[in-house]
Amino acid sequence: MPQLLGGPYNSTMTSTTYTSRVFPLETMEVPGGTETVLRGGRHLFPLLPQAFAGIRRIGVLGWGPQGRAQARNLRDSLAGTGIRVAVGLRPGSRSAADARAHGFTEDDDTLGDWLTVAADSDLVVLLIADVALAAHHQEIFAALKPGAVIGLSHGFLLGHLRANGGDFPAGHPVIAVCPKGMGDSVRRLYEQGAEVNGAGVNSSFAVHADPDGRAVDLALGWSVALGSPYTFRTTLHSEYLSDIVGERAILLGAVHGIVESLFTRYRLAGDDPVTAYEKSCENVTGPIARTISRAGLRAVRDALDPTGRDVFDRAYSATYPPARDLVAEIYDEVADGTELRSVVLAERRLGARPMSEIGGAPMWSVGAEVRARRAEHTVSVEPFTAGVFVATMTAQIDEFAERGHPWSEIVNESVIEAVDSLLPYMHARDVAHMVDNCSRTARLGARRWGPRFQAAFEQIAYPAAQARADKALLTTFDTHPVHAALAAAAKLRPAVDIAVEPATGGRTAGS
Amino acid sequence: MPQLLGGPYNSTMTSTTYTSRVFPLETMEVPGGTETVLRGGRHLFPLLPQAFAGIRRIGVLGWGPQGRAQARNLRDSLAGTGIRVAVGLRPGSRSAADARAHGFTEDDDTLGDWLTVAADSDLVVLLIADVALAAHHQEIFAALKPGAVIGLSHGFLLGHLRANGGDFPAGHPVIAVCPKGMGDSVRRLYEQGAEVNGAGVNSSFAVHADPDGRAVDLALGWSVALGSPYTFRTTLHSEYLSDIVGERAILLGAVHGIVESLFTRYRLAGDDPVTAYEKSCENVTGPIARTISRAGLRAVRDALDPTGRDVFDRAYSATYPPARDLVAEIYDEVADGTELRSVVLAERRLGARPMSEIGGAPMWSVGAEVRARRAEHTVSVEPFTAGVFVATMTAQIDEFAERGHPWSEIVNESVIEAVDSLLPYMHARDVAHMVDNCSRTARLGARRWGPRFQAAFEQIAYPAAQARADKALLTTFDTHPVHAALAAAAKLRPAVDIAVEPATGGRTAGS
Repeated sequence: MPQLLGGPYNSTMTSTTYTSRVFPLETMEVPGGTETVLRGGRHLFPLLPQAFAGIRRIGVLGWGPQGRAQARNLRDSLAGTGIRVAVGLRPGSRSAADARAHGFTEDDDTLGDWLTVAADSDLVVLLIADVALAAHHQEIFAALKPGAVIGLSHGFLLGHLRANGGDFPAGHPVIAVCPKGMGDSVRRLYEQGAEVNGAGVNSSFAVHADPDGRAVDLALGWSVALGSPYTFRTTLHSEYLSDIVGERAILLGAVHGIVESLFTRYRLAGDDPVTAYEKSCENVTGPIARTISRAGLRAVRDALDPTGRDVFDRAYSATYPPARDLVAEIYDEVADGTELRSVVLAERRLGARPMSEIGGAPMWSVGAEVRARRAEHTVSVEPFTAGVFVATMTAQIDEFAERGHPWSEIVNESVIEAVDSLLPYMHARDVAHMVDNCSRTARLGARRWGPRFQAAFEQIAYPAAQARADKALLTTFDTHPVHAALAAAAKLRPAVDIAVEPATGGRTAGS
Repeated sequence: MPQLLGGPYNSTMTSTTYTSRVFPLETMEVPGGTETVLRGGRHLFPLLPQAFAGIRRIGVLGWGPQGRAQARNLRDSLAGTGIRVAVGLRPGSRSAADARAHGFTEDDDTLGDWLTVAADSDLVVLLIADVALAAHHQEIFAALKPGAVIGLSHGFLLGHLRANGGDFPAGHPVIAVCPKGMGDSVRRLYEQGAEVNGAGVNSSFAVHADPDGRAVDLALGWSVALGSPYTFRTTLHSEYLSDIVGERAILLGAVHGIVESLFTRYRLAGDDPVTAYEKSCENVTGPIARTISRAGLRAVRDALDPTGRDVFDRAYSATYPPARDLVAEIYDEVADGTELRSVVLAERRLGARPMSEIGGAPMWSVGAEVRARRAEHTVSVEPFTAGVFVATMTAQIDEFAERGHPWSEIVNESVIEAVDSLLPYMHARDVAHMVDNCSRTARLGARRWGPRFQAAFEQIAYPAAQARADKALLTTFDTHPVHAALAAAAKLRPAVDIAVEPATGGRTAGS
C-alpha cells in the first residue's frame, strides 16, 4: 500500500478544560464528561481591555465575508477602549471602497496596505482567502513586530504549513477564534445583539502557541468582542478537519445533493415544480431547520403523526448508511490532505477557465415563486425529506464523534451552524445561490461532494426506502447522546433567530 | 501554493517509432505524423518462438478477468512451441478451481503458488489486483530468476513505485502489453479470431527497461499471442494516465453519469420508463456505439435529419464545456497522484464496510424489458443523447491530445475500447452491472466521477441546451483530426463485432 503523506490529521483529541484570568467560565455537561465554556454577551465588554492587555492595535487582513464582519464587530465592541482596529488590503484591492464605506479609511489610519497594517499591529488577524494565505503567509510573517499575536479563524494555514514542512514563526502567540457561521451571520447577529444580549454566532478557540501565557484570554476576548454566545475550546487541527469536512457534508455539499435529489424524486412522483420545491428545498431550509433549531433533532420525528413517522423511519434507515459512507470518505480525504491538493489543482485550472455556476438547474427557477407564497401558505414538515436530512446530519455527528472531536465542536459544526446560520440564508436566497457564492474552498468542495450525495441517495438510499425501517438504527437515533449535547448547547443560546434580508437585485447579489 | 508531491505525471511524450527483428511493421498516418504499428493475426503465430527467444516458461500471476483471459490466450497461441504457460495464485486463492476447470493444474505444473511460479518463469506477467500488487511486489521481485522479464498490463505499479520512492529491480527487462479492453473481451474476441483472422482487442506496448535488447520483440510477441489486431507503442507513464483517466471518464464513469442524467431527463419530460431507457442507456450502448464503431464519430451526426442535427448541435454545444472541465479535473487528479491516494483510502475503509451496489437505482429495473423487446423493435439514434455522448467523448480526446498522448492511444482509450469492448458488454448486461463488477480501481473511480458528470450535465449542460448551438465548437468537431486518426485505425480492424453472451442467472453473474 502506498505510504500516505502528511499524516498529522489522523485523530483529534484535545483538552476542553481551561481557566481564565479575566472571564467567568461555566462548565457544560456533554456526553462522557464536561467542557469548559464561556457564555458571551455585551455585559462582558468592560473586561475586554484586560483580556487584550498589551494590544493597542488590531490589524484585520482581508475584507471577505469574515474580514468584513469581524473588523466591524471588533471595532464596535472595542469603541472607547483606545484599542484601534485597522483593515489591511492587498495593493489594488477592489474591496477598499466597501471598507471605506464602512468607516475604515486611510485618513484615520484604519485602512492600509496589508503588510504595513501587519507591521503596525499587536494582533494580526489573517482573514484573506485560503489560496492567498498559502501564497503570501511568509511575507506577512516577515512583516510582524516581535511578539505580535497571529490570529486565525480556521485551521487551513496549519494544514498548509504541515503539508509543506513549514511552521509558524517562533516567539509569536498563535491563536484561533473560529465563528461557527458565515461572515454575514457573524455581523447580522452581532447587530441583533444590541437588542437581545448574547445574540451572535458561537465560536471555537484554539491556542497553538502561547509563549507568554496571554493566549487563552486573548482568544476569549476576541470571541467575546465578535459577539459569540458561547465559546468552546478545540485545537487548530481538530477545527481544520471539522470545518472542511462539515462544509463538504451537511453544511453545504450534502444539503445541495439532498435537495436536488429530492426535488427530482417528487417531480418524478408527479408533483408540479412548485410543490416539489416546497417538499424538498423549502422543507429543509424552513420547517425542518426551524424545528431542529428550536427543539433539537428528535423533535422533527416526534412532531409527525404515526404515518409520517413510518415514512421518516424508512427514509432515515435507507439514508443513514450511504450518508455515513460518504462522510467517512470525505473525512479520510480531508485528513489525508488529498482534498487540499484537489483544491490547489482546481485553483490552477480556474486560472484558465472560470468556475461554471450551478444556479441554472431547473429547480431554482421556481424558488422565487415559492418564497413569494410564504405569506399565505404554510409548509409543514415532509416526513421523507425530514428522514433523509436528519439521517445525513446524524451520520456527520457520528463520524465526528468516532474521530474524537469535542462535543461542542460536533454540535456546532453539524447542527447549530446549519440550522442557525447557513440554512436561514439558504431559506432567504436558495441553496444554489449559497453554493455559487461561498468561499472558493467551500464552493469547490460542495461541487466535488454534493453530486456524490445526490447520486448515492438517488441510486442507493431512495430505492432502499421501500423496505422496512431498521429498528436498531432508529433506537440508536432515539437514544443518541447528541440530544443531551444539543440541549446543553441550547441553554447557552439567546432567544433570537437570525434575521436575513432577501438578496436584492435577484439571485446574483453577493452574500 | 502547496508544493504538489509526486510530480512525474505532468506531460507525456514518447517516440511511437520502433523496429522489430521478428515482425513486419506498418506505418500508420496520424494527425501531425506517423506511428509504427504491428498488424496482428494468427498468421504471425509461427514467429512467436523467435520473438520469445530465451523464454521457456511464462508465469501469469493472478486470475482476475485479465489473468484468466491472457493465460488462456498465451497458452493457446503458444501450443506446440514448447513454451509453457503457468498460472500462479496466492495460497488459498478462491480462483484455483476455475483455473483448474480451464486446464491449468498442479499435476502438469501449470498451476502453483505465485512466488513459486514467479521463481520458475522467464517471463512473469503481473496481473494480480492493484492493491495486492502494491502490497506484494517486493516479495515477487525478490523471487525472480536473474534476468527474468517483468511483464505488466498497465502502468499502476510504476505510479505506485514513483509515489513511494521505489523502482523496478535492476537487470530485469520491464515491458508492458496493455489490451484496450476488458479481460472478457480479450478472450472472447480471441476465440472469434479462429473464424476471422485478426479479431481481438488492440494493445499498446511499452518498454520500461531493456537491458539485453530483447524487450520490443518480447512485447510484440506477447501482444500477437493475445490476439491484438494492432499494437502501438506508448510509455508506462502515458499508459497509466490514459488508462486511469479513461475509465473514470468516457469508458465507465461518464457513461454512467450520462445515462442516469438522461434517463431522468426523459422521464421528467413525460416518457414512460421503458421509453426513457431506450432513449438513454439503450441508445448509447446500441445504435450510437454501433455507428461510431462502424463509421466513426462524425457519422452519428451525419445520419440525422436537419431537425435531429439541430438537437444534436445544441446538446453537443451545451455538454462539451462541462465535460471538458471534468476530464481536465480527472486528469489533474490522476497525474498528481491524488486519485491513487483516494483509491488506497477507499480500500482501507472497505476493509470495515463493503462497497454498496448501484444497480438498485430505478432505471435498471426496466433494462431486462428493453433487452427483451430488441427482436421486434428497432431503436434509432436519439439526437439529444447522441450530442451529449459525442461531446463527452470528444472532450476526452481533446484533453488527451492537449496532454501529448500518442494518437493510437487517444483513439483506443477514448473511442475504440468504448465502442468495441465496453459498450457492447453494457448493451448485453447494462451499465450499472459493469460499474458494480469491474476492477476495484475502476469501480471506485466510476463511483467518484460518474456522479460528477450526472450533476454537471443535469445542472449545467441540459439547461444550457435550450440555447443556440455554438457554431465554432461544431466546426471544430467537424474538422477534428480525430476523424482521420479513427479512419486510419479502422483500416486495421477486422470485420467482426464482439459477440457478448447475456449474463446467465440475472444481473449478479460475474463478468
